Amino acid sequence: MGSSNEKEFRVGMIGYGFMGRAHSQGWRNLNAAFATPRIHMESIVGRDANAVARVASQLGWNRALTDWRDVIADPSIDIVDICTPGDSHAEIAIAALEAGKHVLVEKPLANTMDESRAMVAAARAAQSRGVMSAVNFNYRRVPALMLAKRLIDEGRVGDVLHIRGAYLQDWLSDPTLPMSWRLQKERAGTGVLGDLGAHVVDLMRHLTGKSVEGVTGHLRTFTHQRPDGSGKLGNVTVDDAALATLALSGGAVANLDVTRNAPGRKNELSLSIFGTKGSILFNLENLNELWLFDREDPAGEQGYRRILVTESAHPYLAAWWPDGHIIGWEHSFTHQFFEFVNSIQNGTPASPSFEDGHAVQAVIDAIANSAENGHALTAPEE
Amino acid sequence: MGSSNEKEFRVGMIGYGFMGRAHSQGWRNLNAAFATPRIHMESIVGRDANAVARVASQLGWNRALTDWRDVIADPSIDIVDICTPGDSHAEIAIAALEAGKHVLVEKPLANTMDESRAMVAAARAAQSRGVMSAVNFNYRRVPALMLAKRLIDEGRVGDVLHIRGAYLQDWLSDPTLPMSWRLQKERAGTGVLGDLGAHVVDLMRHLTGKSVEGVTGHLRTFTHQRPDGSGKLGNVTVDDAALATLALSGGAVANLDVTRNAPGRKNELSLSIFGTKGSILFNLENLNELWLFDREDPAGEQGYRRILVTESAHPYLAAWWPDGHIIGWEHSFTHQFFEFVNSIQNGTPASPSFEDGHAVQAVIDAIANSAENGHALTAPEE
Amino acid sequence: MGSSNEKEFRVGMIGYGFMGRAHSQGWRNLNAAFATPRIHMESIVGRDANAVARVASQLGWNRALTDWRDVIADPSIDIVDICTPGDSHAEIAIAALEAGKHVLVEKPLANTMDESRAMVAAARAAQSRGVMSAVNFNYRRVPALMLAKRLIDEGRVGDVLHIRGAYLQDWLSDPTLPMSWRLQKERAGTGVLGDLGAHVVDLMRHLTGKSVEGVTGHLRTFTHQRPDGSGKLGNVTVDDAALATLALSGGAVANLDVTRNAPGRKNELSLSIFGTKGSILFNLENLNELWLFDREDPAGEQGYRRILVTESAHPYLAAWWPDGHIIGWEHSFTHQFFEFVNSIQNGTPASPSFEDGHAVQAVIDAIANSAENGHALTAPEE
Amino acid sequence: MGSSNEKEFRVGMIGYGFMGRAHSQGWRNLNAAFATPRIHMESIVGRDANAVARVASQLGWNRALTDWRDVIADPSIDIVDICTPGDSHAEIAIAALEAGKHVLVEKPLANTMDESRAMVAAARAAQSRGVMSAVNFNYRRVPALMLAKRLIDEGRVGDVLHIRGAYLQDWLSDPTLPMSWRLQKERAGTGVLGDLGAHVVDLMRHLTGKSVEGVTGHLRTFTHQRPDGSGKLGNVTVDDAALATLALSGGAVANLDVTRNAPGRKNELSLSIFGTKGSILFNLENLNELWLFDREDPAGEQGYRRILVTESAHPYLAAWWPDGHIIGWEHSFTHQFFEFVNSIQNGTPASPSFEDGHAVQAVIDAIANSAENGHALTAPEE
Repeated sequence: MGSSNEKEFRVGMIGYGFMGRAHSQGWRNLNAAFATPRIHMESIVGRDANAVARVASQLGWNRALTDWRDVIADPSIDIVDICTPGDSHAEIAIAALEAGKHVLVEKPLANTMDESRAMVAAARAAQSRGVMSAVNFNYRRVPALMLAKRLIDEGRVGDVLHIRGAYLQDWLSDPTLPMSWRLQKERAGTGVLGDLGAHVVDLMRHLTGKSVEGVTGHLRTFTHQRPDGSGKLGNVTVDDAALATLALSGGAVANLDVTRNAPGRKNELSLSIFGTKGSILFNLENLNELWLFDREDPAGEQGYRRILVTESAHPYLAAWWPDGHIIGWEHSFTHQFFEFVNSIQNGTPASPSFEDGHAVQAVIDAIANSAENGHALTAPEE
Repeated sequence: MGSSNEKEFRVGMIGYGFMGRAHSQGWRNLNAAFATPRIHMESIVGRDANAVARVASQLGWNRALTDWRDVIADPSIDIVDICTPGDSHAEIAIAALEAGKHVLVEKPLANTMDESRAMVAAARAAQSRGVMSAVNFNYRRVPALMLAKRLIDEGRVGDVLHIRGAYLQDWLSDPTLPMSWRLQKERAGTGVLGDLGAHVVDLMRHLTGKSVEGVTGHLRTFTHQRPDGSGKLGNVTVDDAALATLALSGGAVANLDVTRNAPGRKNELSLSIFGTKGSILFNLENLNELWLFDREDPAGEQGYRRILVTESAHPYLAAWWPDGHIIGWEHSFTHQFFEFVNSIQNGTPASPSFEDGHAVQAVIDAIANSAENGHALTAPEE
Repeated sequence: MGSSNEKEFRVGMIGYGFMGRAHSQGWRNLNAAFATPRIHMESIVGRDANAVARVASQLGWNRALTDWRDVIADPSIDIVDICTPGDSHAEIAIAALEAGKHVLVEKPLANTMDESRAMVAAARAAQSRGVMSAVNFNYRRVPALMLAKRLIDEGRVGDVLHIRGAYLQDWLSDPTLPMSWRLQKERAGTGVLGDLGAHVVDLMRHLTGKSVEGVTGHLRTFTHQRPDGSGKLGNVTVDDAALATLALSGGAVANLDVTRNAPGRKNELSLSIFGTKGSILFNLENLNELWLFDREDPAGEQGYRRILVTESAHPYLAAWWPDGHIIGWEHSFTHQFFEFVNSIQNGTPASPSFEDGHAVQAVIDAIANSAENGHALTAPEE
Repeated sequence: MGSSNEKEFRVGMIGYGFMGRAHSQGWRNLNAAFATPRIHMESIVGRDANAVARVASQLGWNRALTDWRDVIADPSIDIVDICTPGDSHAEIAIAALEAGKHVLVEKPLANTMDESRAMVAAARAAQSRGVMSAVNFNYRRVPALMLAKRLIDEGRVGDVLHIRGAYLQDWLSDPTLPMSWRLQKERAGTGVLGDLGAHVVDLMRHLTGKSVEGVTGHLRTFTHQRPDGSGKLGNVTVDDAALATLALSGGAVANLDVTRNAPGRKNELSLSIFGTKGSILFNLENLNELWLFDREDPAGEQGYRRILVTESAHPYLAAWWPDGHIIGWEHSFTHQFFEFVNSIQNGTPASPSFEDGHAVQAVIDAIANSAENGHALTAPEE
């Protein structure tokens, strides 16, 4: 991780909700963990001037702004980090790239295929000018999943045949939870499918290198109405649960199951990846662990190995604490930003790319289409 | 469990492979565990006279026979227990029922819908004469799953919304494993779908009381040829993996995922049942455990409760050892036989019934049809 | 396991409580699982003629007797299996050995050092005449612990340095549980120390081959009085919890912690064995699992391997069900009896021997003495 | 957490090793997580001017100094945070307190009883002038252990009877690991006993409110020599493993087992706390979980509840991420600093106090004395 320290980077962040707080944590701790160029948390943007000023002070940003265009117009800004809702991503990102800013966008890349297609085009044009872009599928940077990728790349599980992927939460189990924009199709695009399913689809593609060739999807809404703030009932127009089967390249198959109505599952993003030679298990509720089964271990001694991914031999861990000291969910942001800054410095394409974000969007779209039309094996239209 | 001890039952068992051994274990230990009528392990039937004689002596049967018709003709036999491959079930079971024998059939009930339909008719006719029948979905009698059923019936998880069911094994991961009748469609009907999937479908229906209203299925064969005994390659004509989405009555949805190519998963029949008020988890690899999450536990103290189902307060456990002493897979057979003998004694219908077996067959059939024809949401034709 | 089938063995069992039922299960299923000589469950002995007759019928014994001397006098009996309380072991076992019967004694070998010393002498004399004896530390025959022993013997954990052994139950947590002989020093000798601690001490010695060179013990009684049947309070005069440190040969050290007042721990016999090259974990509540850590696994991939000890490659498992089908607590008895019968047939010393039982008794005795006298590092007086 | 924002605090930190990095992380993120007064990371002190300057820049400190006295002389500094080795704690802390600085000391409080006694006296004197002090037993501030304390205080486990406490690491299993000051008695005082055992003793006292009335200790050194930097062998003069039994107030008993030679245990600080009504389990390798067993749950449904301590209803969690998103080891520092700053603001005594640190030191001392002298039940001399 021996990047030089001479260059400095000034970051402007648009948005300051939950994701804005997580991104701030990522930027704030980057220099302490990694030998990257000095990061300056320069500007944070939100529409409510008072609120954004308060948040800027709390989270460590130098300036609070109310118009994202001011960040793009600011020549001192190197990196624009976009944490707004998905429907504004395309406009901001394309403007920033055209202004020569490196751009990091929180997932999903966009709410529509047209938008994400335009963003991909802008990213390609920018890259030819040395301007980098990435979409923040931060789970790729969880050390256990970095290790999973390395093991799969090294052939430790052989050819991947079958993946079980799920993302289960339970916060919608409460029927008194009020209506919100996340439950309206016109605002959120989809429900749990795009929110949680996108992470799983990205990891399936990323970890195995396989593409999705066909999908069959089923969506379910369990709670059709919820009270809004004024006590009236609003209609929930997105999916509470999404189930899909994915045909992957090379004859592999995958099972996708995502819901926000699974009581007891707080944040279970679980993956089981079965290959010809072994298999790998992961669960985000225990994000410092990876389980590996190797069919080539001696007979009678085979078993899933619980690898506590907290040693200096593991990805990113040398940057943190001694062996065995676990890290948290937020650290994946610091890792992702480290990789992004490295890409900028080295002039190499950043990852996950806008293409990745667009490909995930295409799969989500195909699942929703299959569910709506009752089609088996809809092909994603990338 | 205070049945009287006066009556005695004589059992004749057809078949002596793996299942014959497991059934023998079940019958052999029934009287020691439960206050049922005295069981006599009277006759065992197999085609190879020497082999069956040797097995009879080992397993504790009084007589070894080579023709199942001799058991049915024997007036001393009360119960016929059928452990042969599925294609012979219908003929033997119908003959035995018509001869007034109580009949227990190992799952699957039959290989074809026509056969199972005929068996259901025979079972109904027999029952009107006080002759009982059951299909041996033995996992219903695992104490943890008996407890799961009780908790669901009592409303502890509320309305069931979403089920994740899987049955994962890994013995077909070995590409050198030779060809066998289990891998040929004309003999086995289906591959893992009927073999392991049938258990999961039965449990989904049984535990929740829901029916299956539509299915979408995908089947995969990963290893297309295997060596037969003579070194030649034979064609594998059944599925190695089966994935399906099930629409259940009442708007619930289920995910089915079964394979015999999941390295490291030795016998993982896992169920996650999510309802409006809580959820339940089970995994056959830890068959003495049930996990319960209750949304009505106090805030801040909610969590999955690992219930070690080994206490005298739990189903069947008072028949065995002190609290905390685990039982094995085979005990489910003893429990199932206890229930069957109780039904006979009490003149009440036995469970799982042939109707249950037929309904499961219909779902399996619909999944296979959906997969073959690329149809979404094929309705099972019971 | 290819012993010849020509010889037959007739067993007489003394005692028919919990342990009598478990031993009967062991004998009843021995021939079905293993190719041993034919076992005849000939006589069972108890003091209450009606009760023992009923139990004999239930458990599968041919005859019910009320005087153990009748078994010893019966020339047809080959094996005497003693399941009575510990204070009668010496008298019965010595008489049986002198009568030329092979003798299996339930643990503990005896209640006093003098008794166990006399039993050792009788066993040695008998062995010189080809008459075998063993004490039933059945946990040695749990497949996972057989595997543990093999791995340790093969050097997979290197030199053993440190053992953590515990046996935790919770049935005495209920303060309303009535007084019983198990809670009186004059009847039971010790409390949890001898009842559960003896198993742990035996396993420590057996698995590592190390002897116990010194102990420091602490005993605690938490509930000093309990109601007896008539409503009066009786004094509890044994230990509820026992903690000890053991100095083992070769400079190793062990921690022993046993209690029957650990709410939630139903039957946790847990062992952690740490060596120079790796370590091994076991917990009886998951008796089909063994966990192995190997410091020689590749860096970055090290982790505890959860070995599901249910494969035909594992000790005894080929005798039971296909891979992944778990067995229960009781199977350890069948395994132990298989080994005992093999010893008789082959004329080789049986294990665990009376010497083993005596050595364990000496450690238990030393722990009790250390606790009573406040001595650090009392040496066991074998 | 509604402290006012008007006051600001300037921190000077002495020391910049592993603990200095962890403390910096704690201070850096405090304002983002909690509504405390503004924290200024003012000065960091180390002996090597170049190194400390580099670290200051990386970790976010404004100034780098080489003499701790300069921090104490700086009137702008409010808080002195001491992360140096234990032998310098007393001198620095007493000087800082006398200069009117609030003082936080990394554990152990000191290396000798005399030093810690003097520190307690200084802390008492300072507190009478409104100057606060605390020792950083940071594990008290792990949310799961905060919850454990609350549950115990509320009587959820009843009277605590028996504690099993262990802290197991494995980094000394490597025999090629070189000699260091941590392995020399004259520098480190003790080995694993003071390093890891102190945490366990503090938690036992803190969580249950019990005092330690007597101890019996055993220490072991497994590797007696290690190479130093120049290739020569140096003598290891501290303990590799420490085992002790503790008599606690109220008749309770505790088992302490700590080692740095347990292959596979990376950072297992595990606690089992058994009471009359229930029990609690914790393991630092899964620091976001707490397990609770409640004997008052309905019969048949009792079991350890795995509480994922990541919800806004849990201590400190509202300051971080949505439910189910785990936090890491380092967050305990932020929590501890939050509590310390609150104490200063509110003028209430800080916790853990120097008295707590001294009491732990007394127990560690008594264990070492018992081990050296072969005494059972040595009383700690607070």
